[in-house]
Formats: sequence, structure tokens, C-alpha cells
Amino acid sequence: MTDYQELEARHRRMSAIGGAISILGWDQSVMMPDGGAQSRAEQVSALSLIVHEMQTAPDMDDLISSAENDNGLDEWQRANVREIRHGWVHSNAVPADLVDRKIMARSACEMTWRSARAENDFAKLEPQLTDLLAIIREVAAVKAEAFGCGLYDALLDSFDPCRKSADIDVLFAELLTFLPGVLDQVLEAQNAASPILLPEGPFSIEAQEALGRQVMELFQFDFDHGRLDVSLHPFSGGTPDDSRITTRYAEDDFTQSLMAVVHETGHAQYERGLPKAWRGQPVGQSRGMAVHESQSLLFEMLAARSPEFIGYISPTLREVFGGSGPAWEDDNLLRLYHKVERGLIRVDADELTYPLHVILRYRLEKDLINGDLAVRDLPEAWSEGMRELVGVVPETDADGCLQDIHWPGGAFGYFPTYTLGALGASQIFAAAKSQDDGIMAGIAKGDFSNLLTWLRANIHGNACKLMPDQLIEQATGAPLGTAAFKAHLEARYLRG
Amino acid sequence: MTDYQELEARHRRMSAIGGAISILGWDQSVMMPDGGAQSRAEQVSALSLIVHEMQTAPDMDDLISSAENDNGLDEWQRANVREIRHGWVHSNAVPADLVDRKIMARSACEMTWRSARAENDFAKLEPQLTDLLAIIREVAAVKAEAFGCGLYDALLDSFDPCRKSADIDVLFAELLTFLPGVLDQVLEAQNAASPILLPEGPFSIEAQEALGRQVMELFQFDFDHGRLDVSLHPFSGGTPDDSRITTRYAEDDFTQSLMAVVHETGHAQYERGLPKAWRGQPVGQSRGMAVHESQSLLFEMLAARSPEFIGYISPTLREVFGGSGPAWEDDNLLRLYHKVERGLIRVDADELTYPLHVILRYRLEKDLINGDLAVRDLPEAWSEGMRELVGVVPETDADGCLQDIHWPGGAFGYFPTYTLGALGASQIFAAAKSQDDGIMAGIAKGDFSNLLTWLRANIHGNACKLMPDQLIEQATGAPLGTAAFKAHLEARYLRG
Repeated sequence: MTDYQELEARHRRMSAIGGAISILGWDQSVMMPDGGAQSRAEQVSALSLIVHEMQTAPDMDDLISSAENDNGLDEWQRANVREIRHGWVHSNAVPADLVDRKIMARSACEMTWRSARAENDFAKLEPQLTDLLAIIREVAAVKAEAFGCGLYDALLDSFDPCRKSADIDVLFAELLTFLPGVLDQVLEAQNAASPILLPEGPFSIEAQEALGRQVMELFQFDFDHGRLDVSLHPFSGGTPDDSRITTRYAEDDFTQSLMAVVHETGHAQYERGLPKAWRGQPVGQSRGMAVHESQSLLFEMLAARSPEFIGYISPTLREVFGGSGPAWEDDNLLRLYHKVERGLIRVDADELTYPLHVILRYRLEKDLINGDLAVRDLPEAWSEGMRELVGVVPETDADGCLQDIHWPGGAFGYFPTYTLGALGASQIFAAAKSQDDGIMAGIAKGDFSNLLTWLRANIHGNACKLMPDQLIEQATGAPLGTAAFKAHLEARYLRG
Repeated sequence: MTDYQELEARHRRMSAIGGAISILGWDQSVMMPDGGAQSRAEQVSALSLIVHEMQTAPDMDDLISSAENDNGLDEWQRANVREIRHGWVHSNAVPADLVDRKIMARSACEMTWRSARAENDFAKLEPQLTDLLAIIREVAAVKAEAFGCGLYDALLDSFDPCRKSADIDVLFAELLTFLPGVLDQVLEAQNAASPILLPEGPFSIEAQEALGRQVMELFQFDFDHGRLDVSLHPFSGGTPDDSRITTRYAEDDFTQSLMAVVHETGHAQYERGLPKAWRGQPVGQSRGMAVHESQSLLFEMLAARSPEFIGYISPTLREVFGGSGPAWEDDNLLRLYHKVERGLIRVDADELTYPLHVILRYRLEKDLINGDLAVRDLPEAWSEGMRELVGVVPETDADGCLQDIHWPGGAFGYFPTYTLGALGASQIFAAAKSQDDGIMAGIAKGDFSNLLTWLRANIHGNACKLMPDQLIEQATGAPLGTAAFKAHLEARYLRG
């Protein structure tokens, strides 16, 4: 066995353990009784530790070096070695005791966050978030040294490999040149027009679920390789050949759960489309969270909320829920799915205001990591940022800086990927449409086969062969930018 | 850290991985889409291999020897070391390549068995079962040498530790002194009486499930630490703090699913009652399959099918299913749950004929393992044995030697535990009742708290501190025998 083959064998095993962890995570959110929490934590911790031990085995560096000098490798194998090295640097940079401290602090902080948010009590969270932040800054420092980059970029790299905050600064600054103006215009027009009507429920969970499955089938979700279930927050998990997506249902509003299903189907289709030949290897994985989010948002925002698809699905909605009257007319349903609002809560935001929420979090987490903002000053900084960026100010911390799990969960550097994903979605969708006239014609008939074929060939099937920016550039002919997103917003919201 | 503590730490990790494997196994039977089979096999195989590597680590023998000579250990710790040694001998006896060959042969054989049974084609299974048997005999040979025992006893030991086939021969011979006669008498009386009526369905799955949950609550199943779901064959899985039990429903008959639920609840309550202080250690596990089956059969056969409980639950059955008329009368429902029949299928057998099915399999598998019977001669030997023991002969192999998954699944030495469990159940229940008058009085009111308290103290809480025979003897005052079973059958079926 060559050193390269040895690396493949080890990563195949690590990937199998990772798949097990993923299924156990799904089970925890969807199936597990509360009393199973302790034993589940022990299971996942044992498996995670085994992966960490394998990844930081003493001979790993030499094996990778040897593979890096193996001239017999093909393009994919070389990319695999590059990804293996990249993952190794991340794991190896962090000493075992720091890994332990991070896991403990994160777990304590996340638990406190749940009650602090419920009780709207930021003071309760502050000490533990301060401790966790200190540990995350330690992690950032050792990784920054290993990668030779800044603190924040070292964290960002885990979620969107090789992305630099300097690039994000440029992209987000560009967004701010037009988003506020577009938002003003859209709101003005929306307010001047007749009110948008929300169809009146109740809508049975059974009917909503059946509709969700029907729409998943349209998006070619393969139920022989996946499931749809219910969880507190929608997510996509499992493995490429065993997708587990979830949604949640509200009896008084079917519109949210339906789009959540489409969104998670976008994530699942990305995983499902990863190259079968590279299952279990680092190069065969998805290309980070920004690209992942581009695929879910492309399905949800670009395809499913398009006038073409809303026009196609509206008769089905009326039929499934027995709806009739003005709220159920095609035009109202389309306006409902394009409704814009200055709101307090990120996860409820529309695609126009969502980036403003993200920019706020991005600014704050950069300052936290760089030591320019203390946790205790977070509520005030949050309010100021909301006033400036979104134009509304939370009355409570529960609706403010306590709303997201990311920071208490130790995920700093994750937030920008939502908006990078939105930019990518627009740019990729525009490229796809320009290369295949059949895509929009198909969507208007509920047929996503042309779109999926294009995505399989240009995004999914490339896995981690290229870096994220190269992948976008190869697929769309240009580096990631804001132009396509701007054009999409203008087309959808200003020419309507 | 002492060597003993090191052993505890390693076994804690192995147990956590084992728990993960158990949850993944449940998921596979209950949740997983078919297309997930390949990735699941890879996950479970990776985790199983890790446990095997840990268990056969080069320093393990020395660590155990050191702990065996550690005078500072208390009684439970010493028992833990004994169990660790016992598990080590099992794992260490079998070379890695034989483990691999067994896994491969078993997986191929089990797959072939599924279609062979469906197609009633024993010839299709024969070559692969022959191969698998050869490998199992190799395993038996290396274990027999390690333990210094016979081939069959070496396999038996995995399922009922320290049990000897010589003891089973005696017990089963005793059973054959009275079972055939009792069976004749019961069938004669049953045929002479008015026909037993099966309540007419359909019975909605929802109502059956709600009833199952209600009965589980009576048996004090803790839904904060467990779930009830549906699978092709009922089973009990998960972990002590996260029990996953399943049943299956037939719309034309609620009686089977209800008793399956009680049976699996018995298994789950045993696991749940294992001592919390010894979670994750070999000494904290259940005491083998015979004791396990004694707990499920005690719940199902002794408690739930008792006249007291059937009397208690009959009004509920009528209410839940809206039943009325002769089939729904207390007396008919009791006779239904005590119905006896010479049948072809083990899993459908009543408690009188079940041991006869088991004795047949026990004889045949002993001969197979000892080389006294070839796989190709199995169908004929099966028919002869059925004629002699049960008094009916299958017309097809599907209803004969193809009916059970055990042998194609590589499990030789498992079958006797069903009947050893039945003997244990009667003996334990008799002891419990003789020590606590409140047990039957409680059952008559649907209150199982006295019974459960007694089982927790005398069986569940002892885990693996004692060997199976010692456990039974300590709890009941006598070694495992057939007297209590005989007395139970005569009381229930002959004095009715």
C-alpha cells in the first residue's frame, strides 16, 4: 500500500465514523427521548475523539508529505491530498487540552443560552459567553499561526475555506451601496399597493407534509436515499446516500414549512450529487458552507419563489388546502412569497433584509474575535447596528443578540456564509439560465431536471476538486461578486 | 491511573461505541431508507472494527492480569475484571482474518436467505450456509481451545455465559418427560370445549398503538428514556437510558402486537434496571440472552397473560376497539390468550409448543456444529424432528428449516436461550410471588410496581455481578430447573 493509499484508507474510516455521528445527530434532534441526552453525548464524544486521534496521529504529517511528493497521482488524487493537508493543519494546530476546553465551554454556554434566551436574560449568558470567546480566541490564535493569517480569517476558514475577511469587507460594502436604497423603494411600493393577504388556516399537518413531499419529488429528491421529518429547527443532515431533512409545521401558515422543505432539499441535493467515486474522501465532500448555502438558496429563493414556479404550484396549493378567494389568487400568493419587511429576527427575514442582519453579525463577531468588543457591550452594539442597518431596534435581548445559537455554540466566522451563499446562488442561477434556455421553461412546468443536470455537472459533481472561488469562477465565468444578486433583486422587486 | 482504571476507561469508550452501533441498528430497522444500506454497513463495520481493535490491543492481556492481581478492588470491580477477561478471551481467540471471513460469509448468507425463504428454495441457500457453517466451526474450534470446552459450548457461551450443553440436555430431557403429555391433554380439552373466537377487525393501527402505549405505561416503561416504533420484526434495542422497542401491527388482529409490546417492554425494563453506577462497564451489562428472555417472557407469559391481568385489561380492550358480543367476553379473551396449537412456525408458537420447536433446533445445530449433520440433509432432519416433537410436518422448507434467520445470520447456540428463558421466567416469577403477596394483587389492578421493585432488586440490579446460574439461584433459592415451568403450565392449562 502506498502512503497515499494508506491516507485514503484512514480517511474512509474517519468518514464512516463521521457519517455515524451525523445520523446520531439527526436522531438526537428528531427521535431521541430527552432522557437519552447523556448517553448520546458520550457516544458522540467517543466517536469525535477517535476521529481527532486518527487525524492527529503522529505519522500523519509524514504520510501527507510523502503523498504530496507522489508524482503518480492524478488531478483528483492531488486535490484529495491538498484537502487532507488542509484538514490536518486545522486539527493539528489545536492541542488536545484546548479541544477539550472548547467542547466543555461550548456545551455549558449553549445550555445556558437556551434558558437565557427563554428568560430574556443576557446577564445570565454573559460570563459563559465571555469564557467561551476567550477559548475561541485561543483557537483562532493557534490556527492563525498555523495558516499564517489573521485571527478572524483562521476561524472563517473552517466554514468557507480560503475566504478572507478582506474580500468579504469589499462584497458587503458593495451590498450597502444599493441594498438600503432598494429596500426603501420596495417598501414604498409595497405599502402603496393593496395589502398582501395571508391565506387563513388551519392547514392540517398531514396536508402540509404531503404537499412538502410532492414538491420534494418535483425537485427530484430521492426518497430511496432520504427522509423528511419534523424538528424544532429545519435542517439537513445524514449522509450523501441517506439524506435526512426536516421541517416544522405551523397550522396557521403553510408557506414557511413549504419553503423550508425546498431549502433543505437544496442542501440534500448538493450532498446527493457529490461524486460517488470519491465518497468517504475529503475531496469528495461539499465545498464549505457558503457553497452549500448557495445551493439551498438557489432552490428556495431563485427557483421556488420565481413567478414561474409560484404560477405552477398555486393551483396545487388551492387544491390541497381547499383554498379560494382573493388570498389564494396567483398574484397574491406571489406577492406573499416576495413580501419584504424590516424585522428583528434573522431566520424570519426576506432575501432583501437578510444580508443586513448578516452584516451586523459579521461586524460584531470580527470585533469580538479581534478584541475590539467585549461581550458585556454586545447588547448595545447590537441595537446600534440594527438601527443603522435594518432600521428597527429590538426591545428585548431575546429579540436581539440572544436570538442566534451560533456564538453560544462556538461558531464564529459562520454568519457571512449565509450572504456569500445568497450572492453565489444568484450568480450560479444566472449562469445556468444563460447556458440552458430549458431551465426556466422547465421550472414553469414544475420540471427541475434541466436545472439539476446543470448543477450536477457544474457544482455538485466537482465536490472539493477546486477551491470555492475557483469553483464559482469556473461555473459562472466570474469571481464571486454582487452584480448578479443586485440584478436579481431589481428584477424581482423593482420591475414587478 | 491504575491498570484497572485504564481498563474501565477503555471499556467506557467501547461501550459508548457499542451504544452508537445499537442506535444505528435501530435506525436501520425502523427509519433508514433502503438506499442507505451501503453507507450504514460501512459505518457499523468501521465502528465494530474499532471495538475489536481496542479489545485485542497488544497490552490488554497484561492490563487484565495486573487488575486480576489488584487487591484493592471491591466485589463489583473484581466481577468487572472477570467479565473483562471473559470478553477478552472471546475476542482474542479469533484471528482478525477469521473475523473478516465470518462477517463476509454471514452477510452473504443472510442476504441469500431472504430470497431463498421468499422463493422456498433451500437449494439456493445450501452452498452459502455450508460455507458459513464451516467458518463458524472454525470459530468454535479456536474458542473451544481458548476456553477448554467443546465446540458447541464455545458458541453457547457467547449467548449464555458458562452454560454447558450437558446441562441443557438434562433440562430438555426433563421437559420431554411431561410436555408431550400435557400438550395432548390441553388440546383434547380445548377441542372438546366451545370454539375460541377471534374478535373481528379491522382494528385501526392508531388505536392499537395507543393501547400499546397505555399498557407500556402500566408496565412502567419510561417514555422519557425510550420509544415505541414499528419494524418488520419486533425487537428491543438502543441503550439502557434510551430504549428503542418496536412492534408490528395487523389490522385484523390486535392480540399479537399487544403481547409483542409487553414482551419487548420486559427486555427494555431489564436494561433500564441495570445499575447506573456500572453503566459502560462489562459488569453493568445484562446477564446474557437466557436471563434477558426470562425477563421478557416473565412480563409477557407470566404477568400479561395471567387471568388477573386479562381480567383487568379486557374492559379496556372492549372500550378501545368498541367490541361487544361473545368474542369480547372476559372468558373468551382469556382462552384466546391461552390457545394452544401444534404449528409449523416457531415465532407463532404458544408457550407449550415453543420449547418443542427449540429442542428441535438445539438438536440440529449441535449436530451441525459437531459435524454429525450436513447442511444438505437439514430439510429431511427438520421434517423428521417436527414429526417427532411437534406432531406436524411442513409441506415447504419456507415453513420448515428456512423460517429462522439465526443460522444464516451466523447465530449458532442462540436457540436454547429461548427455552432456558422460559424456565427462568417461571422460576423467578414463582419466587417473586412467594416473597411478595402484593405482586398478584397489583397485577389484578394493572399495577406492576411490586413486581418491578422485586425484579429490580433481585435480577436487574445485579447485572453481571454473578454468573447466570448463580443469579437465578440467589434470586429463587434453587438452580435453574423445569419444576416451576411445569407447575405453571399445569396451573394455567390443566386446572383452568
